[in-house]
Amino acid sequence: MTASAFRLSARAETVKASEIRELLKLVGRPTMISFAGGIPDPSLFALGDFQAAAREIFAGPASAREALQYSTTEGFLPLRQWLADYMGKKGVAAGPDNILVTSGSQQALDLIGKLTLDQGDTVLVSRPSYLGALQCFTSYGARFAAHDAPLDVATDPAKLLYLIPDFANPDGRTMDRGARLAALSRAERLNALIVEDAAYTDLRYDGADLPPIAALDQQQSGSIELTRTLYCGTFSKTLSPGLRIGWVCGPAALIRKLALFKQGGDLHTATFNQRLMHHVALTGFEAQIERSRITYRARRNAMLSALERHAPPALRWTRPEGGMFIWLTLPEDIDATGLLSEAIAADIAFVPGGAFFTDGSGRNAMRLSFSLADEAQIEIGIYKLCALINAPRKKRAAMGR
Amino acid sequence: MTASAFRLSARAETVKASEIRELLKLVGRPTMISFAGGIPDPSLFALGDFQAAAREIFAGPASAREALQYSTTEGFLPLRQWLADYMGKKGVAAGPDNILVTSGSQQALDLIGKLTLDQGDTVLVSRPSYLGALQCFTSYGARFAAHDAPLDVATDPAKLLYLIPDFANPDGRTMDRGARLAALSRAERLNALIVEDAAYTDLRYDGADLPPIAALDQQQSGSIELTRTLYCGTFSKTLSPGLRIGWVCGPAALIRKLALFKQGGDLHTATFNQRLMHHVALTGFEAQIERSRITYRARRNAMLSALERHAPPALRWTRPEGGMFIWLTLPEDIDATGLLSEAIAADIAFVPGGAFFTDGSGRNAMRLSFSLADEAQIEIGIYKLCALINAPRKKRAAMGR
Repeated sequence: MTASAFRLSARAETVKASEIRELLKLVGRPTMISFAGGIPDPSLFALGDFQAAAREIFAGPASAREALQYSTTEGFLPLRQWLADYMGKKGVAAGPDNILVTSGSQQALDLIGKLTLDQGDTVLVSRPSYLGALQCFTSYGARFAAHDAPLDVATDPAKLLYLIPDFANPDGRTMDRGARLAALSRAERLNALIVEDAAYTDLRYDGADLPPIAALDQQQSGSIELTRTLYCGTFSKTLSPGLRIGWVCGPAALIRKLALFKQGGDLHTATFNQRLMHHVALTGFEAQIERSRITYRARRNAMLSALERHAPPALRWTRPEGGMFIWLTLPEDIDATGLLSEAIAADIAFVPGGAFFTDGSGRNAMRLSFSLADEAQIEIGIYKLCALINAPRKKRAAMGR
Repeated sequence: MTASAFRLSARAETVKASEIRELLKLVGRPTMISFAGGIPDPSLFALGDFQAAAREIFAGPASAREALQYSTTEGFLPLRQWLADYMGKKGVAAGPDNILVTSGSQQALDLIGKLTLDQGDTVLVSRPSYLGALQCFTSYGARFAAHDAPLDVATDPAKLLYLIPDFANPDGRTMDRGARLAALSRAERLNALIVEDAAYTDLRYDGADLPPIAALDQQQSGSIELTRTLYCGTFSKTLSPGLRIGWVCGPAALIRKLALFKQGGDLHTATFNQRLMHHVALTGFEAQIERSRITYRARRNAMLSALERHAPPALRWTRPEGGMFIWLTLPEDIDATGLLSEAIAADIAFVPGGAFFTDGSGRNAMRLSFSLADEAQIEIGIYKLCALINAPRKKRAAMGR
């Protein structure tokens, strides 16, 4: 029996397994140089801190029992307080009532989709944009348009602007202060909410921090309760993705509504994990960020340098100030998805650009992550990848004539 | 600014904070005797097993890094294999491809709602039914009807039957074999899916196990791939709720679709938690169930005995063979919600029956959980509760004349 034998929801008919994800399941083999996932290097994880925190939580029976028991939907209060203080340092004055702890920031995006979107609503996004956001907003019936394209407010009343202002997934670009203010003012004109995805914000390698849109919004409106920005953060790119701890910060009235949907969605985020993360964040967050920055900065530099030395002249790429990604644009006649199977055969992986659009764009682009491979692997991988890009292009050009 | 200043989804306008949940937030104080939550007694948690498992996972760097890293949406393969074997012992022959690990069984219900329901679709339920299921199906636009009431298949094509066959939340009732077969045959006539919520199944105190609907379905259809039952299980009532590990078992074609929605929803369930639970389940699941049964059986007996001795003659209550709940029906002129604030003032908590209906029924009923209070507290609590029930009834009867 296939799933189609049953009467499913309209949204179930549209959701499809991604061929690319299926292809990338092969990436696990040890000889592979992977530029595919946006995943932190596990050798950077603060194992000693996690070990010590787990030992302490399980040391006394009262603490152990609390960590294994149900807890509140909103999240562990000391962690929410820590996160409110963290937001304060970013220029967003917030209290625990402005914070909902989520099961990774992916869940924050899903809850925001559920809170705001009806079938056919428009979400304004950067192009390209994060695959997982497109996927979950699509499941609530969203259509997409470019956040910075001319727009008729009267005929296309978008409800959400979804933006990744710092070192975006997938293209590594950073919105400058002017672009942030322009997005805010567009959101005001539309009476839309802004979803500020700050997954990579702490991983800056050059230049000065820019204020989050949430901070600019608060500067203009005077209080977080008067803002229209939902800031989504996560520990997944810094401390650990496998514990699934993210958060959303915004006006308390919206946080309360999101908590109601979370209650129906998974009751609450794992109690033990929130306590573990709170312990480790208290003692080791700054040190972890410092360690990560040093490692990833060197890898970004290695990838940029390798591209400069090995890339055929027709290639273009971004030069990110932080994060995990470089966006590589190929000549228009090269299809990156076609290239991926050849690359995997040669033990190199990346994500074809089409995955980050919903309209078939990006076929001649790819996302390269520099977070997982070390500098030597990056040098070899980029060399081989550039050779591959060169090879089929010659063939195709020859065939085209 | 209130949430209503923004344009939200239609579903956001309907979701509301439950007054009862707000009231029950007061239940934390130490003097309270709580019959409210369906929560396991934390003094039963196998602390030593969890401690040892955590130590082992964090002992080697490779294992620690894997536990803190991203993992697959479907779940940790050894845990899925353990769960497939567990299902086999219940009479459901399944492999890992028939299992999706979820962030508690609440997430399984949410994903099934998302998979199947469009605005206005009917879900057939027992009356009363689990609050959290009503809440999450409502968020996908469901209407509800009784699963065992006469139904015109042509005019009311329900998509789901949601049932808790063993020691149901909230009324403690168990569906006999005939009722299970009748539900199955109704689902076949409707071409509907069955959601079998088995949260309490392992907590049986008397009598023999009955086959899950999923097993009866498989007996009739010959293979799990030909069944229409999605079996939702959880470790929350046995090993630990705070780690948020549940699962759904069913035809692989539906499991794959559910995994796609889970990917957009929270990427995957926490890696560390799946490994921890697998360790503890391997070594201590049977012992945990045995320990829980002994404790909860004695508490159920204590509550039934206290009710027999203290309840005014007009009260009626169920006699569950397992689980955590007794359903108490009051005379029709007593409103259980009104009674709750008086009870909380007297340090006793319960959940008013209206919470388990969507149509205003159940006002003169309440759910009493016997899982958390010990026998002495149960005796005192039931004595005081019965005194309260008697008291306002006299007052009201007097006022009514």
